[in-house]
Formats: sequence, structure tokens, C-alpha cells
Amino acid sequence: MSALATLPLFAMSPWSAAQPGAPAAQIDTPALLLDLDAFDRNLARMQAALAGSGTRLRPHAKSHKCPEIARRQIAAGAVGICCQKLAEAAVFVNAGIEDVLITNQVVGPAKLQRLAELATRARIGVLVDHARQAQDLSAAAHARGARVDVYVEVDVGAGRCGVRADQAGALAAQIVALPALRFAGLHCYHGSAQHLRRPEERQAAIAAAAAHARAARDAVEAAGIPVGIITGAGTGSFVHERDSGVYNELQPGSYIFMDRDYADNTAGPDDIRFEHALFVKTTVQSRPVPGRAVVDAGLKASSVDSGMPAPWQQPDVGYLKASDEHGVLGGDDGALPAMGESLLLVPGHCDPTVNLYDELVCVRGLASGAGTVEAVWKIEARGALL
Amino acid sequence: MSALATLPLFAMSPWSAAQPGAPAAQIDTPALLLDLDAFDRNLARMQAALAGSGTRLRPHAKSHKCPEIARRQIAAGAVGICCQKLAEAAVFVNAGIEDVLITNQVVGPAKLQRLAELATRARIGVLVDHARQAQDLSAAAHARGARVDVYVEVDVGAGRCGVRADQAGALAAQIVALPALRFAGLHCYHGSAQHLRRPEERQAAIAAAAAHARAARDAVEAAGIPVGIITGAGTGSFVHERDSGVYNELQPGSYIFMDRDYADNTAGPDDIRFEHALFVKTTVQSRPVPGRAVVDAGLKASSVDSGMPAPWQQPDVGYLKASDEHGVLGGDDGALPAMGESLLLVPGHCDPTVNLYDELVCVRGLASGAGTVEAVWKIEARGALL
Repeated sequence: MSALATLPLFAMSPWSAAQPGAPAAQIDTPALLLDLDAFDRNLARMQAALAGSGTRLRPHAKSHKCPEIARRQIAAGAVGICCQKLAEAAVFVNAGIEDVLITNQVVGPAKLQRLAELATRARIGVLVDHARQAQDLSAAAHARGARVDVYVEVDVGAGRCGVRADQAGALAAQIVALPALRFAGLHCYHGSAQHLRRPEERQAAIAAAAAHARAARDAVEAAGIPVGIITGAGTGSFVHERDSGVYNELQPGSYIFMDRDYADNTAGPDDIRFEHALFVKTTVQSRPVPGRAVVDAGLKASSVDSGMPAPWQQPDVGYLKASDEHGVLGGDDGALPAMGESLLLVPGHCDPTVNLYDELVCVRGLASGAGTVEAVWKIEARGALL
Repeated sequence: MSALATLPLFAMSPWSAAQPGAPAAQIDTPALLLDLDAFDRNLARMQAALAGSGTRLRPHAKSHKCPEIARRQIAAGAVGICCQKLAEAAVFVNAGIEDVLITNQVVGPAKLQRLAELATRARIGVLVDHARQAQDLSAAAHARGARVDVYVEVDVGAGRCGVRADQAGALAAQIVALPALRFAGLHCYHGSAQHLRRPEERQAAIAAAAAHARAARDAVEAAGIPVGIITGAGTGSFVHERDSGVYNELQPGSYIFMDRDYADNTAGPDDIRFEHALFVKTTVQSRPVPGRAVVDAGLKASSVDSGMPAPWQQPDVGYLKASDEHGVLGGDDGALPAMGESLLLVPGHCDPTVNLYDELVCVRGLASGAGTVEAVWKIEARGALL
């Protein structure tokens, strides 16, 4: 069996929530819905926001894990995609995506062998923040006759992985000296800035991140090494990286979907408005007492790591608590839906919610209240953790 | 296509973390590991705890979603299993499990048609807390020529679904009057009691729950209807339901695995000790600064709805925060594992963590440090949300 041979298994859901052509009202629940009209507008808005800015778009596919969405992002102008995991990257390459940046360190001989094989079939980038990672990667790629793009990860304020800006030159020099690697640039992502609530907080955080990125660029250039790409940014902050004069590639992911947590950010004057396009459809299964409705979507249907989902266009209804398979809604009894009625939830956090589903039920005309299922897209990298 | 025809798809993980026969040290990460020795002891301990008690075991399969585990639970003495979702039940029936109680309301014509079909192939139980649910279920079952066990759900203190104890008699009478239904008993589960930290709190909560269950039983019997089964309980409280004199069936699920949240309960003198048998294996991918190690298991690898996972047998190492695909460990630098080294995490909450994986890597001899992969079990009902 070759290193990347796929393992055929049967999907675990015994049936689909909907078939193409069905009215949206007939979608079984819980199901993950994509409002295709809002999604198309979000795609176009991001491309418009970057046009003429000197930054290119490499959207993060960890948000959607769906090759059909990656193809549409690239058709709209993206240069490729980001993934967070080697196994995700393999899914996208197997689906025909030709340019994938794994925005993560990849360690261990088994993974490096697979990464090298993948790099013979597509352009693959990966991050390093230590010379040993680069040495091991170089050895694996060299053995396989592959060439891998390598980015130095710089800690620009997130306090997670990455070297200090002043260490970037030395690490870049080590990369340049290794065979089978191509020093591609700097990865300067500030994750924790994305959900700072006030626009001036996000602006200040990215101003600081851009200063680190600039210092890292200067350190690499001082070592005589040209810096190609300076990549980073997310949906909450990308206008600031775009306007920084330092970044030339942006990685937002959630803009296609938006979630409750992003909606909780206060927009600044420069921020681009994206629409909620991702919903969990749920049904009231019990109305045990006045003022309480229990729905069939709990924390296995809508991830609660960033708080509860929000009932969509139901200002008088609150999603109060989630257990594994139940959600408890509260509010004035007259505002609550009746037993058997359905409603839409805006997930608290889109990425881990998408990762709970095998399929995305794509609806055209959802906002009209009489939409139709246009397609069912496979979330092919769902669960691709390795 | 028949109502329960399966939909063949390919699994989303492009490769497995391990193959049977491999040394445990070679399991790729992140991976979900089952310590088979601890698991076997947990199975035996639960059966021993119920022997001669007048209560039977119907373990909850929402914790494991794995037919291989269900078969072992039944072989050890369980009468059948619980599921929380119709789609889960279908997976287990398709895998040969013959007695499944869906501990939930099931609403809507599409689901009821599937439920009725399932009930022609296995013994299926389901809960109701409103007469209309029973009427709709009866109509669907009657049309299919099926017979369904129906339990009245009683709110015994959880404040989620269920009727009041004094309403149980009237609802039971309505069930008895409907064709194609068999009134099977009362469902009296107190979910929120499971994680009360102090043993006397759990004991008091279950004493109150048992009083509600007794009152509901009396109300049904006063309507001239015999009550067969009174079912409920979870891993945190089951000794109290066992000893209540009211319950005759228990539904614990997590006892086979145990998680960090259950370990945070203070054990009382009557509590049975179960062992951690479920682990997320993870690898250090980055050691950016002294005192910090970043691992490859974030919130898509170990659910954080009940708090962070806990590093196993690493008392000086803390798992500080999770992002989608990164976990940040902190501690004294000398205590932290080096880049490339692996460690085990005890998940914060086992049920939603299992639901993130397609496979359970089963290791014999894990505690010795030199274990072997004995089997890889499919988590077949992973993502079975409908």
C-alpha cells in the first residue's frame, strides 16, 4: 500500500438529511445548511476587498474542509488554499487542488514521508519554527525527490508557535542551506486578534503584528535572503493586514460562513460586512413547560467551544444550554416555536461545527423562506486530524 | 430506495492512525486510543456492581457509537443498549444489535417512518412527553405493521424534557389506548446530577429523582396500568438509582471510558472506581519558548465543552488552552516533553470527543509503556445526528 493510499470505509450517517431538488422545508434535522446566495456574495465581497491592494487571497480551508468550496474560492481568484493538517491537505490534493499551504509544523517520520509524497503531486508549503523540523523535512523530501515550500513561522503576538522576529534570519539561512526545500517566506498569523471585540483593539493588535512581520522580513533580508511571501490574517482582522504595507497574502477562512462569535465583534469603519451563510437547522422535539422548547441540536450538532449558537431571526428566543443531543431554548412562550417546528441556528464557531458533519446541504433562496436544495456537498476532510 | 437504505460514501480520513499488530509507539497522532485492559476491567466492574441488585444494565451507546463495544457490553450481561438518536439506533440495528432504547423524543413524519421500519427489524423503544408524539408514532407504526415500546419521560430534576410525575398516569393511559404501541415504563434520567462534585450532592439529587420516579409510578398504577421498567441513571450517580428501590434498569455510558470531568467528581464511600480507558495520543510539534510545548491535538481532537483535557500521568504539565488544531501545554520546562515526543491526554468529555473520530485504536498493554495495537474498531455511528 503506497503511503497515501486511501482507506475506503462507509460513511457513518446511515442516510442524508436531504437530496438535491427537495424543498428546504423537507430537510431533516439536525442538518448543516449553506445559504448559497449569501455564500456567493461573501466570496465576491472578499475578492472585491482585496482587488488592487497588493495582497492575494489564500483562504483557509480548515473552516470548510470541502473541495467544492475550495474550487469555487480558486475560481473566484484565490491562489490556492491553506490547510491546518497534513491529512486535510491530502484530501484536497486528492480532489485536484494544486497549491496547498499547511499552516502548521509537521513532525515525525511517518508524516514527513507522506508530506514528501504529497509534494510530488502538488505544490505544498509547510511551516517551521525550529531548524530540526527543517532538517527532517529536507531529508524526507530529498529521499522522495520532492521539493517543499517552507515558511518560517514568526510569533507576531499570538503566543503559540513561532520564532521571535529577530530569530527569523538565522532560521531562514538554515532552510536555504538544505536540499529539497525552498524558502518561501514568513508566516505571521495573529489568531487571538481575530475576536478582540472592539475595532480599535484589532487594529492595534495587527499594527503590532505587522511591526513584528516587518522586523522579521528585515532580519531575513539582512541575511541576504529575499523574502517572497508574508502571509497571515483572518476574517476578523484582514483589512488591517491588507493595509499594512507588509503582508502580501491573506488567509481568512470564516468569511464564507460567518458565525455568532464573529458577529459579536463590533465592526469598525473599514471592516467588510459578510453575511451569515452557515446554519444548523433544528426541530423542536419537546415543549415540556411554558417558556421552554427543547430542540434536537445539542453540542454534537453545533460546537459550543466559543459559546452557544444563536437562533436566527428570532430576537425573542435564546438558546440557553446545550447537552450532547439536546438544546434548550427559552423565551416568552408565545415567541417560542411549537413542537415539530423547525428553526435555524447560527453556530457559535463555524470551523468545529462543520467538522461534525459529513455533508453541507446547499440551499438556494433560503432567505425567501421557500428555498430549494441545489446540491449536497461532501465535507471530505471532516475528521482529517492526522 | 427503501427508507433505511444506507448511503455508501468514502470515509473522510485519508489514512488510519495505526494498523493492528503495530507497537503503540508507532500510532500516528492525534489518535483516539482505548486501553483494552482498563476497558475490560471497567466492563466487569459495572456488571459486578449490579449483580443481585434487582437492576439490569442497558448502557448508553451515545458514549461510544461503536457496535463492537455494544456487542461486548451485551456479552458481559447488558440487556441491550440506549441510543440518543434514531440514526444511531439504525447504525446499531444494522450491525446486529437487537434491543435499542432511543432515550429521546422522535418527531416529524420522515423520522417516524424510519423508526417504524426499524421496529420491524429489532426491539425499539422511544420516549414521549406529549400525547401528540405518541399519536404520530402510533400512526406511523400502525401503517408499517410495527410495534414500538414507548416510555413516558418524567422530569425528575434535570429541567429539560419530560412530564411532571403527576401527569404520567394520564399520558400512560393515552399510550395504552393507541394501536401499535406498547407502554413499556418510565424514563427517569437526571443528567445534571452526574457532575455534581460532592457525593452527598449526588446522593441528595438522586433521592429527589427517585421520589419523582416513585410518584410517577404510583400515578400510572393508580390509572390501572402496570409499570414494567423504570430506567435512568448515569455513571456519576448510578449506585444511588441502583439502591433506590424504584429503578430496575440503569443506563450509564461513560463508565467504560471515564473522562477528566468524571474524574473531577469526588468519590463517595459507595461509588465504584472506574479507570481512564480513553486517551487522545498527541505529539509535540513545537517548543517555541521555555515552559511552553505545543501539541497537535486541539479542540477538533478533544472536545472542550466540559473543559480542557488533562495530560495523563504528567502531574507537572498543564494543558492550558486549545485552538482548532493546537493545544498549548505549560509547566516547568524540564517537565515538558520535547519536540517530537508523544503523550496521552484524558479528554475533558468522552462522548463528544469520540464523535470526532472514525476509529478507536485499541491497545493491549498500554499501561506497560510497550503496548500493541490489538484492533482498530470503527466508530460507526460517529456523526449520526438525524
